[in-house]
Amino acid sequence: MAISARPDTVGQGQLLRLLRDEGPRSRAELGELAGMARSKLEAELVRLKQVGLVQEGGKAASRGGRRSTLVELSSFLHFGGIDLGATSIRVAIMGAELQVEAHVAEPMEIRRGPEQVLARAGELIEKLARDRGVQLTGIGVGVPGPVRFLDGMPVSPPIMPGWHEYPVRDLLARRFGCPVLVDNDVNVMAVGEHWGGVAKSVDNYLFVKIGTGIGCGIMIRGQVYRGIDGCAGDIGHINVDPDGPVCACGNSGCLEAMFGGAALVRDALAAARSGASPPLAERLAGKQAITPEDVGQCAAEGDPVAIGLIRNGGRRVGLVLAGLVSFFNPSMIVIGGGLAGLGHLLLAEIRGVVYRRSLPLATGNLPIVLSELGPSAGAVGAAVMISDHVFSIP
Amino acid sequence: MAISARPDTVGQGQLLRLLRDEGPRSRAELGELAGMARSKLEAELVRLKQVGLVQEGGKAASRGGRRSTLVELSSFLHFGGIDLGATSIRVAIMGAELQVEAHVAEPMEIRRGPEQVLARAGELIEKLARDRGVQLTGIGVGVPGPVRFLDGMPVSPPIMPGWHEYPVRDLLARRFGCPVLVDNDVNVMAVGEHWGGVAKSVDNYLFVKIGTGIGCGIMIRGQVYRGIDGCAGDIGHINVDPDGPVCACGNSGCLEAMFGGAALVRDALAAARSGASPPLAERLAGKQAITPEDVGQCAAEGDPVAIGLIRNGGRRVGLVLAGLVSFFNPSMIVIGGGLAGLGHLLLAEIRGVVYRRSLPLATGNLPIVLSELGPSAGAVGAAVMISDHVFSIP
Repeated sequence: MAISARPDTVGQGQLLRLLRDEGPRSRAELGELAGMARSKLEAELVRLKQVGLVQEGGKAASRGGRRSTLVELSSFLHFGGIDLGATSIRVAIMGAELQVEAHVAEPMEIRRGPEQVLARAGELIEKLARDRGVQLTGIGVGVPGPVRFLDGMPVSPPIMPGWHEYPVRDLLARRFGCPVLVDNDVNVMAVGEHWGGVAKSVDNYLFVKIGTGIGCGIMIRGQVYRGIDGCAGDIGHINVDPDGPVCACGNSGCLEAMFGGAALVRDALAAARSGASPPLAERLAGKQAITPEDVGQCAAEGDPVAIGLIRNGGRRVGLVLAGLVSFFNPSMIVIGGGLAGLGHLLLAEIRGVVYRRSLPLATGNLPIVLSELGPSAGAVGAAVMISDHVFSIP
Repeated sequence: MAISARPDTVGQGQLLRLLRDEGPRSRAELGELAGMARSKLEAELVRLKQVGLVQEGGKAASRGGRRSTLVELSSFLHFGGIDLGATSIRVAIMGAELQVEAHVAEPMEIRRGPEQVLARAGELIEKLARDRGVQLTGIGVGVPGPVRFLDGMPVSPPIMPGWHEYPVRDLLARRFGCPVLVDNDVNVMAVGEHWGGVAKSVDNYLFVKIGTGIGCGIMIRGQVYRGIDGCAGDIGHINVDPDGPVCACGNSGCLEAMFGGAALVRDALAAARSGASPPLAERLAGKQAITPEDVGQCAAEGDPVAIGLIRNGGRRVGLVLAGLVSFFNPSMIVIGGGLAGLGHLLLAEIRGVVYRRSLPLATGNLPIVLSELGPSAGAVGAAVMISDHVFSIP
């Protein structure tokens, strides 16, 4: 059988991902890593060079004999990552091996609607690309709401008025002339943390984002699980108190209505105004606003009201996660998003509740840890997602 | 390349499962269904005949020309299914196509411990096999607690004292001289309902068992998801009321401590003794005991206390399921187990809460239905599980 007769797109994708994740390699190393015979490897590399995806690199370190030439991903490959948050835009441009080449973030309210937000995100990434003189090979996008992954449109996203069924993917694909994928922000964060963060070796895990809202990325057997309608992981709207405050989704007592950036600021403002917390009142008087960071700082300085707000929030998140641990039995939980900055106090409370409230078998070896990539998890994950996609169709 | 040089075990498994699920087929039909070339098909069938897994059957219906011979699974294939409940043993013997050939059920308390329960289950299935003069090809077992699937041992099962790390699989495999697989009862029920019940065409769904306890089988992409330690789906110990009664697991306010067969009987007894429900008191006086069925009958007769017990229970189950729907976004929820017999009243309450409390996107097309296989879901699923296993290693 002539091995080189037909291109093996699965094998090509595997080679491209290997070069992305392991860096430049000699043909001998590549063949070994991919479990691919030399003749077949050479045939696929020829094809990948023809379409401009790989190139010959420098020389490998000497092994005694003649030094072999390394194969590497083309230096023309550049991926864009756009992470749209409730109150921010963060964009990054990454090289073929997903090293960050340039990035920028700025405040932006997602509720200004898709035209304005996408125009600004497009400008930012276009400028980064132009400044470096590069063309984008693909763009990954994360948005803070449920997305129908197949057509890249948000669907009834509670905190994104005006975005329902807006063609985010097609609009950006037209503007940049390259493939674009759009997903829920927690899904891309889960991908990012799995690719290059604390969940690197972990194939079944939960990435819990606690930002303005609360969501959860689910990774099963190394792949994002999106559910039947693409809205799996929407844990911010799990009920934690039937008598709790009304949520943006219309129900009352949702986790997100009780904790998360928006709820924490609401409760901190109330504590400042009522005089219950003099340190919070002082900050409010100083700048006419309170942020989650202010609550964290007041807690660090020992203000019992601020400490209580964080502890109560952590307890509620912990109760929801304890239920999910009983249901899903993951091998790790990663906590990310803006409020992960509240650090140990929040984490300790979450851990305490989960370890106390789930079955021993499920928590015997369950690390609950902070995201390693922090604020860049989303943009990195979006780039991983789009590079996986581009590499699967060479 | 000589196609018949090496046996293709994946292809063989596919052929065996096709013959199990579709019944006797002509070679032409089989080749088409399996997408397998005629020469390869013939080579694999020769091998499967040699090891006694398939046989020539009758003639196919005429298509005009010569009538072709059908291929079918060997009539020597028989699978055993053992479904151990908290208070019952149910065993069945199935033929190669999983048609039930014989079955029997009797009351048995799982807490009598593994020696006594497994001895009795073994006797029952041995007698069924002896009476029909058959040898078992494999046995599947479901038990009401978490199981380490790889070695077939229960692990810290809350309602199964004495069963922790007991070698259920190895003991039965030795006794019957055939492969045995052991799994949590809800997992085998989920497999059964997916193979031959209401979830036949559904690959991502939840099977919720409400029996003495409450558990959940999770099917993802057509396969049981067991979690990292094999205890996924343990939703009976999700907290629903921090001030609720103490559970067998040691925590308080678990779903299972609030509803399920054991809790329902406890609450019904209290209502009978306090005089709150005269119909329940009457039944208690008549036979010195109350069963979940009694509560169902009193509710059907209009007793407001019995109705309230079922509604409250349904609401609590619904709240937990609403959270899981937000998290997992399944395409169907099937309700089974003994208390599914409470029927419409329970189902209506569960549906109401789930539809009201989950995001519209996740419930827009989410059937919540009763199990079609009912009490036999477990034994059927156990036989499907073991036949899948046997067919994957011919």
